[in-house]
Amino acid sequence: MGGRNSHQKQISNKNCSNDLENYCSKGIATYCATYHDGTPTYGGYSNMIVVDEHFVVRVPKNMPLAAAAPLLCAGITTYSPLRYFRLDKPGLHIGVVGLGGLGHVGVKFAKALGLKVTVISTSQNKHKEALERLGVDSFLIGTDPNQLQAAMGTMDGILDTVAANHPVLPLIGLLKTNGKLIMLGAVAKPLELPVFPLLMGRKLVAGSGIGGMKETQEMIDFAAQHNITADIEVIPMDYVNTAIERLAKADVKYRFVIDVAKTLKADD
Amino acid sequence: MGGRNSHQKQISNKNCSNDLENYCSKGIATYCATYHDGTPTYGGYSNMIVVDEHFVVRVPKNMPLAAAAPLLCAGITTYSPLRYFRLDKPGLHIGVVGLGGLGHVGVKFAKALGLKVTVISTSQNKHKEALERLGVDSFLIGTDPNQLQAAMGTMDGILDTVAANHPVLPLIGLLKTNGKLIMLGAVAKPLELPVFPLLMGRKLVAGSGIGGMKETQEMIDFAAQHNITADIEVIPMDYVNTAIERLAKADVKYRFVIDVAKTLKADD
Repeated sequence: MGGRNSHQKQISNKNCSNDLENYCSKGIATYCATYHDGTPTYGGYSNMIVVDEHFVVRVPKNMPLAAAAPLLCAGITTYSPLRYFRLDKPGLHIGVVGLGGLGHVGVKFAKALGLKVTVISTSQNKHKEALERLGVDSFLIGTDPNQLQAAMGTMDGILDTVAANHPVLPLIGLLKTNGKLIMLGAVAKPLELPVFPLLMGRKLVAGSGIGGMKETQEMIDFAAQHNITADIEVIPMDYVNTAIERLAKADVKYRFVIDVAKTLKADD
Repeated sequence: MGGRNSHQKQISNKNCSNDLENYCSKGIATYCATYHDGTPTYGGYSNMIVVDEHFVVRVPKNMPLAAAAPLLCAGITTYSPLRYFRLDKPGLHIGVVGLGGLGHVGVKFAKALGLKVTVISTSQNKHKEALERLGVDSFLIGTDPNQLQAAMGTMDGILDTVAANHPVLPLIGLLKTNGKLIMLGAVAKPLELPVFPLLMGRKLVAGSGIGGMKETQEMIDFAAQHNITADIEVIPMDYVNTAIERLAKADVKYRFVIDVAKTLKADD
């Protein structure tokens, strides 16, 4: 294409060779996409896959492969915004909305960075899990006005991992002056966002989508160094339909990993 | 107050002694507010006013007082976010939405900082003014789909000075990856903000409200150094009702300044 769109293309294409492949306008997704020659891409559910070495991440030897796998999505999706938005300084207080696949990994990175972490959830069931097993500093029911009121203006940043529609105004209220609400889930419905609460505290709402290859390698190395992996349940390929049903009920802690080629061992 | 709100108060009070008086929870506005002793504040429409020296800005000698006056609102409101959000590097491209009291001053600061500036307006009438008198680099009708399409993904930041309800999605589209949309007007209706366009380019929407005293002094000194003043029309006190009517019709370039005590000379 030329003419009107060429400038935008040039701009966005800068990302492709600037360690921001995730924001590259020429990117071809592993699935639901089309190669240059017009053939569809077939995803990763296969015994073997041929990949350009630029897009290969080295998993450190001490890291179990199966529990590392979800880090390539959930890990980089939470790690990247903590770094980019400078929510990575020890002592900062962040909230993590939603304790699921993204959230539980986000909590682990945040704790490893020395942050104070509050999980914001709609489910009291996750209280014990969050505090005792994940070691978060506090837990907050995001629909409880009293709990919200008590925590108003206390957070430097919030990672919002919830993809379902939900109000963000209470989350803006939880932020300190200069606080940052980072949306990580592709919420279908537009946010309803009053401007005044942003003005009154120089707050921001941003989006962040996974990360580039260089930062993904950095994330995996950081994870290995701090013994961070995703909590997973390994399943065989013929279990995928059941897994999808369980996912819909949030009945997994926290990610399914498919042993496609039946090659994973217990400590993989 | 103690208990639940005390933590928030402590947090926000940090701003009061940290050069962020504009975000201080103990602030007392010059008008429509109440002093500690319960008496109302009376505003600045008076021959004399007693002010704590901390809240006095020194206007450099070479700067006309009347044309400096609006900088204490419109100037700092546009200068502060350019600095804070690091939209102050020569060569960056910013958009300024709305060419009014805030916008025309924002353009002047942006040009003085070496930025490329595009004015985004709904009024073709402002085209000539923007390019010829204010020296902006380009002008864009924000409701024209073709003009928007041509400028997609070209801006590092946007200062949105419009206080009336307006769609922000087209503005998000104008931003490059990592672009920043800064809301400066207290839009009454909540923004309708789709999340996906933020995610796909790590974009952010923020608010910014005037600035602290230290930065206001810095802004005035910068303005004096670069011969920046507001474009004004000086009026006598008995003209204020007419001025309000003209304001409602946007019939002023760009700020009225009231000569309260009839002391301003032509070059003030």
